[in-house]
Amino acid sequence: MLRIGVVGCGAIGREHIDRITNKLSGGKVVAVSDVFVEGAHKVGDPIGATVYNNSADLVNDPDVDAIICTTPGFAHKETVMQAIEIGKPVFCEKPLTTTAEDSMDIVEAEIAGGKHLIQVGFMRRYDKGYRQVKEMLESGEFGAPLYLKCTHWNPEVGTNYDTPMAVYDTAIHEIDVLHWLVGDEYESAQIMMPRQTKHTHPDLKDPQLMFLKCRSGLIAMVEVFVNCRFGYDINCQIVCEEGVIDLPSPAVPTYRKSGGLTTPIGHDWKKRFIEAYDTEIQEWINSTRKGEMNGPSAWDGFVANLTADALVASQQTGEVVPIDIGVVPEFYKK
Amino acid sequence: MLRIGVVGCGAIGREHIDRITNKLSGGKVVAVSDVFVEGAHKVGDPIGATVYNNSADLVNDPDVDAIICTTPGFAHKETVMQAIEIGKPVFCEKPLTTTAEDSMDIVEAEIAGGKHLIQVGFMRRYDKGYRQVKEMLESGEFGAPLYLKCTHWNPEVGTNYDTPMAVYDTAIHEIDVLHWLVGDEYESAQIMMPRQTKHTHPDLKDPQLMFLKCRSGLIAMVEVFVNCRFGYDINCQIVCEEGVIDLPSPAVPTYRKSGGLTTPIGHDWKKRFIEAYDTEIQEWINSTRKGEMNGPSAWDGFVANLTADALVASQQTGEVVPIDIGVVPEFYKK
Amino acid sequence: MLRIGVVGCGAIGREHIDRITNKLSGGKVVAVSDVFVEGAHKVGDPIGATVYNNSADLVNDPDVDAIICTTPGFAHKETVMQAIEIGKPVFCEKPLTTTAEDSMDIVEAEIAGGKHLIQVGFMRRYDKGYRQVKEMLESGEFGAPLYLKCTHWNPEVGTNYDTPMAVYDTAIHEIDVLHWLVGDEYESAQIMMPRQTKHTHPDLKDPQLMFLKCRSGLIAMVEVFVNCRFGYDINCQIVCEEGVIDLPSPAVPTYRKSGGLTTPIGHDWKKRFIEAYDTEIQEWINSTRKGEMNGPSAWDGFVANLTADALVASQQTGEVVPIDIGVVPEFYKK
Amino acid sequence: MLRIGVVGCGAIGREHIDRITNKLSGGKVVAVSDVFVEGAHKVGDPIGATVYNNSADLVNDPDVDAIICTTPGFAHKETVMQAIEIGKPVFCEKPLTTTAEDSMDIVEAEIAGGKHLIQVGFMRRYDKGYRQVKEMLESGEFGAPLYLKCTHWNPEVGTNYDTPMAVYDTAIHEIDVLHWLVGDEYESAQIMMPRQTKHTHPDLKDPQLMFLKCRSGLIAMVEVFVNCRFGYDINCQIVCEEGVIDLPSPAVPTYRKSGGLTTPIGHDWKKRFIEAYDTEIQEWINSTRKGEMNGPSAWDGFVANLTADALVASQQTGEVVPIDIGVVPEFYKK
Repeated sequence: MLRIGVVGCGAIGREHIDRITNKLSGGKVVAVSDVFVEGAHKVGDPIGATVYNNSADLVNDPDVDAIICTTPGFAHKETVMQAIEIGKPVFCEKPLTTTAEDSMDIVEAEIAGGKHLIQVGFMRRYDKGYRQVKEMLESGEFGAPLYLKCTHWNPEVGTNYDTPMAVYDTAIHEIDVLHWLVGDEYESAQIMMPRQTKHTHPDLKDPQLMFLKCRSGLIAMVEVFVNCRFGYDINCQIVCEEGVIDLPSPAVPTYRKSGGLTTPIGHDWKKRFIEAYDTEIQEWINSTRKGEMNGPSAWDGFVANLTADALVASQQTGEVVPIDIGVVPEFYKK
Repeated sequence: MLRIGVVGCGAIGREHIDRITNKLSGGKVVAVSDVFVEGAHKVGDPIGATVYNNSADLVNDPDVDAIICTTPGFAHKETVMQAIEIGKPVFCEKPLTTTAEDSMDIVEAEIAGGKHLIQVGFMRRYDKGYRQVKEMLESGEFGAPLYLKCTHWNPEVGTNYDTPMAVYDTAIHEIDVLHWLVGDEYESAQIMMPRQTKHTHPDLKDPQLMFLKCRSGLIAMVEVFVNCRFGYDINCQIVCEEGVIDLPSPAVPTYRKSGGLTTPIGHDWKKRFIEAYDTEIQEWINSTRKGEMNGPSAWDGFVANLTADALVASQQTGEVVPIDIGVVPEFYKK
Repeated sequence: MLRIGVVGCGAIGREHIDRITNKLSGGKVVAVSDVFVEGAHKVGDPIGATVYNNSADLVNDPDVDAIICTTPGFAHKETVMQAIEIGKPVFCEKPLTTTAEDSMDIVEAEIAGGKHLIQVGFMRRYDKGYRQVKEMLESGEFGAPLYLKCTHWNPEVGTNYDTPMAVYDTAIHEIDVLHWLVGDEYESAQIMMPRQTKHTHPDLKDPQLMFLKCRSGLIAMVEVFVNCRFGYDINCQIVCEEGVIDLPSPAVPTYRKSGGLTTPIGHDWKKRFIEAYDTEIQEWINSTRKGEMNGPSAWDGFVANLTADALVASQQTGEVVPIDIGVVPEFYKK
Repeated sequence: MLRIGVVGCGAIGREHIDRITNKLSGGKVVAVSDVFVEGAHKVGDPIGATVYNNSADLVNDPDVDAIICTTPGFAHKETVMQAIEIGKPVFCEKPLTTTAEDSMDIVEAEIAGGKHLIQVGFMRRYDKGYRQVKEMLESGEFGAPLYLKCTHWNPEVGTNYDTPMAVYDTAIHEIDVLHWLVGDEYESAQIMMPRQTKHTHPDLKDPQLMFLKCRSGLIAMVEVFVNCRFGYDINCQIVCEEGVIDLPSPAVPTYRKSGGLTTPIGHDWKKRFIEAYDTEIQEWINSTRKGEMNGPSAWDGFVANLTADALVASQQTGEVVPIDIGVVPEFYKK
């Protein structure tokens, strides 16, 4: 049984606690922490977990084997660095940190420590559909992938959602999953702004067409349209030398009614990837118990930072912005 | 140019006149007749056609090479028999006649005349989708067809539509097209009545599940549901030894809107098969000009009568009713 | 933690042990039994379970809170009756017993005991797709279900698979799930044999068209075709007063290749319902820990026996065979 | 009856002659010409058409009411200018001419003549699918179109097909149909070259991603991939403020076989748009007989030239190239 401490008892923290406690196998939440200690008690007490009002004490708790960090992004670095120092594994929700520099500090610390400890919460890699697509690509039957197109369509956002968030909060999932999917590295980013929807607001460009060029020449296009009205709809089509592969949409009953045959599209991104979250945490528990680390790494967290920054830079100018991730460290090669 | 006389200037007659005049090649409507002679003038005068108030004069008109008969079913026999007598080809709308006996009279007269003259207006055989399915079946790649299932879903009917009409007016199309599709002959009929929709009325059983067993053992199931509300939706799935084939639905744009991805379903049976009507008449013109007759024959008209009668008999009892078409005459073998 | 004893260490037993140990939450396999005691040791020893060479000792083990019974069908009754006697919950794989009489004995014993203890392993009720369909039906938006059509298409079977097995082993899943889906009871059964595939053998009629009529008049048609060659393909379409609902197929990537756009169809029934098995056992663990029993009951096991017998009787004659389940006992009403 | 002279008796010429003679209504080919006069005799003699060895005599023939010009592109201008001079309508296959300058000469001549005489053979506007999409866009139910994506996937090309042909021969269809579809004008063009397929050759960049920006801000992306191997596959998805619309693919039977449910994709572009060709010529005959001109105009021919040139310029540099069509002349406004 993996004894887990959860740092941060907000919505995501509570969901992870619930799935570990009631759905998954091999893990037990033994400690929780939150700066709002009442919130921490509310979730920790019913399951008999030790409650802390700060992350440092939880990380140091000798009864905690591994940590899940779900605090806001700016607070991740401190927890993660401390865990590396004392050699405890951390599952850290995305983003790893809020800047490429901070993520690089973590990368360097982890390499210095010589042990793979950090996994970043990019759950798309655990979605069954993406995994099936990756398997098909790796079978070789489709030849080399040449370009691909993704939609990240979301029904609507609030007025606090602004232009950079289309990258940092939304496209960030595609940023991570796409280079993993095709086994490639980005080398430049560009954004085109097409005609804008009347449903957006002054601080948000919507939709945006994002382009990520890889070292192989492959171009990944990501359509971010967060006020599309009709639903939360994730699509990904990969055009290869010998054929084209499409990511499946969730299986739902279709129906005939009122002059149409309809496949429902959900509105809730959390439901869309709920099974990926379960798989992600279950696999993290399983591999951590075996002393392995197979998920998105600190390096992947750094690459996501760097790529997102390049896209945001292009939001201003429309120009191609280079992404220089340098040489992938030996330590992170798979 | 085939000089055509149209008997009957109701809706269907006018549509055939319009397509011959404005859409198709090689035919010209030179005469029209209707017992309501004003109606005949209304359509005949603008195109310079001779107008008759009775079918007999039109059939005899030496300027008429071939006849299209679109009068009500009970009036078909007289026109058709006269045409056979003087050796003129007739395209006769379905049903050939209203009884198997009358249709047999026509069959015998045509055989006696020794010349293929009569085509019955079963337009489904001209639908591109059915033709593609037939071609796939005949390729041999799918092995023998074992059973098949059709839906004949119609949005709603008036209160004048009663239980036997579910066979005589609706399933009649499947009756003709299915045995042609699989190259087989019916030998028995049965109808099951499932739970009835609240949208039906006392004189109409709706839906009805119809079963036609063929000599090969193949069972064709036809679901007739004429108050299905959602649209006019024709489906046909053929289960074979080596695979399953589905009739295509019409190609229409799909759209995402309001939480769903929708393929529209039309409401109008005439629009569903509009291209089949065009093809049917064009091919009739072409073959008639060459002195050939390739379409559904008088024999097919007779078989449809006999089969429909057996189904209607089973509507009362739910029992299996034999269909005895006897030996297919040499004259009609293809 | 629910302490579980698993009776029977064959393939299904081992799978349940694996999922409880490595995938699900809240259960622990503490004892296993098998008449082949070496097999029991092989699976029990690595997880530290007590190993028995007979089911009776396992059921009596005071460390066992609940039992999973995965022995062959003929052996179920003894284990289940003993468990009822001493008041322990049992998850019993299908069939509950091999005869309606034996199942009725269990029903009566359970009622006499006054406590809901027995759940039968009809996993389709736990399939996400069926649950979504049931929810849509119960929403009332589609009106009453009138008839429904299912395919149970399986790529191929061995020569030991004979005609009755098409009911007892194959259609048995539809028998259970369909009346649950529409909230109705069967009152008669019938089987039609269409043209037979050349891929069958003398002891097996294949395909078979099965009809189950419900008290409401609803007719459920189940197409069983176990040598269909192309894949394991489960479909279910429910025709209602206000629309039609289709069970979804699993979400898999589609691809364009060699002149076609293809959605893969799996060959393995176990993979098709793997998630349903997980959900089934997880929910059984959860409800058992709460002292509840929500799944398919001993009564459902009895109804399945009775219905299957009626279908098998009709395999011989093609006639309609009545199914008389009598009055549903108060004890089992939900 | 419209008396038509066909200039050019190559493949396309012969097809138009065949459809006018055997399929369409209201037109008759009365004259044909070709510099290879034997070829002209071969097609003209059987239908009793006058045969010329040059286009000028055919255009001058007083028995010719209207001209169809299917010679190679470089030869169009002479025929078209002569027809304008003597006031005869011309259906001119695409491209109108091979340079924007030549097309502008025709535009100016037609305006000077004051009569709409020239239609260019962009048949996509006559495809039922595009027309349905346009109708949906114009209904207003989907709000403003914001961006759109097309695939022009073709199974393979010969080694004589080079990089500029991806625009001039392939994307030219999207160039015309897209601005018509959304009712907008292009203002710039750009091409990105993604990773290249191994199935291309040194003189051909394949695939190519083309971007056309419209005055409204709408961006049209056209994926040209002419060695995609799997089939000829035309897709178009329009993302609007209130929903997304997809162009339908042709209706073909789907089938289950060998572990998959497959929708066939054709290989032949001519078959894909065969009905559009029929409709195009039929509507041209109908409108010409009424003295009207509703199809793609000389101006559209000029716009296509200018847009194609801009795309080809961007093939070299990858840069955004402006398209300056200036003010649409009053004469061509609809």
